Amino acid sequence: MRQYQEQIYIPCRGRGMYEITLQVRQSLETTPLQCGMLTLFLGHTSCSLMLHENNDMRARHDLENFLSQLVPDGKQSYAHSDEGPDDMPSHIRATLTNTSINIPIRDGKMVLGSWQGIFLYEHRILQQRRRITLHLMGE
Amino acid sequence: MRQYQEQIYIPCRGRGMYEITLQVRQSLETTPLQCGMLTLFLGHTSCSLMLHENNDMRARHDLENFLSQLVPDGKQSYAHSDEGPDDMPSHIRATLTNTSINIPIRDGKMVLGSWQGIFLYEHRILQQRRRITLHLMGE
Amino acid sequence: MRQYQEQIYIPCRGRGMYEITLQVRQSLETTPLQCGMLTLFLGHTSCSLMLHENNDMRARHDLENFLSQLVPDGKQSYAHSDEGPDDMPSHIRATLTNTSINIPIRDGKMVLGSWQGIFLYEHRILQQRRRITLHLMGE
Repeated sequence: MRQYQEQIYIPCRGRGMYEITLQVRQSLETTPLQCGMLTLFLGHTSCSLMLHENNDMRARHDLENFLSQLVPDGKQSYAHSDEGPDDMPSHIRATLTNTSINIPIRDGKMVLGSWQGIFLYEHRILQQRRRITLHLMGE
Repeated sequence: MRQYQEQIYIPCRGRGMYEITLQVRQSLETTPLQCGMLTLFLGHTSCSLMLHENNDMRARHDLENFLSQLVPDGKQSYAHSDEGPDDMPSHIRATLTNTSINIPIRDGKMVLGSWQGIFLYEHRILQQRRRITLHLMGE
Repeated sequence: MRQYQEQIYIPCRGRGMYEITLQVRQSLETTPLQCGMLTLFLGHTSCSLMLHENNDMRARHDLENFLSQLVPDGKQSYAHSDEGPDDMPSHIRATLTNTSINIPIRDGKMVLGSWQGIFLYEHRILQQRRRITLHLMGE
């Protein structure tokens, strides 16, 4: 059993879903692992990591519509708003989704389903640079 | 440290929660692991894996009622609906819950609480066959 | 590659967020791990583990306000209510958040972001004693 760790940085142009499947696949290919576990971790509290339908852009828009209605920006009742109307909603969105994901490795590849893509979901409106730690264990 | 990996297939008769605790326990018992980590992973974007109260069937019905009100099927505003009125709601339900779960192994057993069961939550209305990857690491 | 496992118990005075970052850091420091993966797991279905903004207490209050509106206590429609009006809402809150979290270890430290704290979120109104399993793998 061996392990590998890497940090990658994703530039985000604002709120929305950024597919990173290819970048993660490339990191995996630099290791000799055939079987194991990949963990992706986000060192932030206002964006998310998720697996989501990656074939139809409309699915991403529908998800954004759902979240922006469930957690509206700029509600008067938010006390934590120093960084703007999207500050607290971004923390809530992150809480309702995930900060890390696990994907098993089999035959040297991630066992993703046909339409499963890896996404960084940026919840803040302004542009950000986000740090993801990739951790691989296996043999 | 050693690892084991297996894929199991769960037939689902439509939307609802399917308890898989026993099947997972049986897979664990085929390995000699005494201490370690179990990860379950779902290769799909319209169903979920979760730990939930497994003693009272009413808790499952209450959860389903909650989700079907929070994410109603067939809303006109969904653009991603090629597979029917439950298509996009299933992706949203999956996003609000989890695609994978981790359970530590201790003394050869999962450290589940007394009322914690492992469930595959199918969100699609029609029957499906779902693939779960079980990954075990430890010694 | 080596692994370590420990169980810690957290007394909760009722619903709310309890920061446990320091306790987890202390457990990590008793091991010689420089690189690896930490998993925290909760053996319960009515509380959550999460990473959340740990600098501004108002962010916690805003999150609690959001959840208590999204999943109101004591709704007549809950059939699972033997343990009180907060019984089923606690299971739903746990479902919408997480029972376990993963945090990579790098240079002997958790790779947490500047404002990322580890929280046990108790959803039940009465006091509870909660069990968390800490699992560490690495070298």
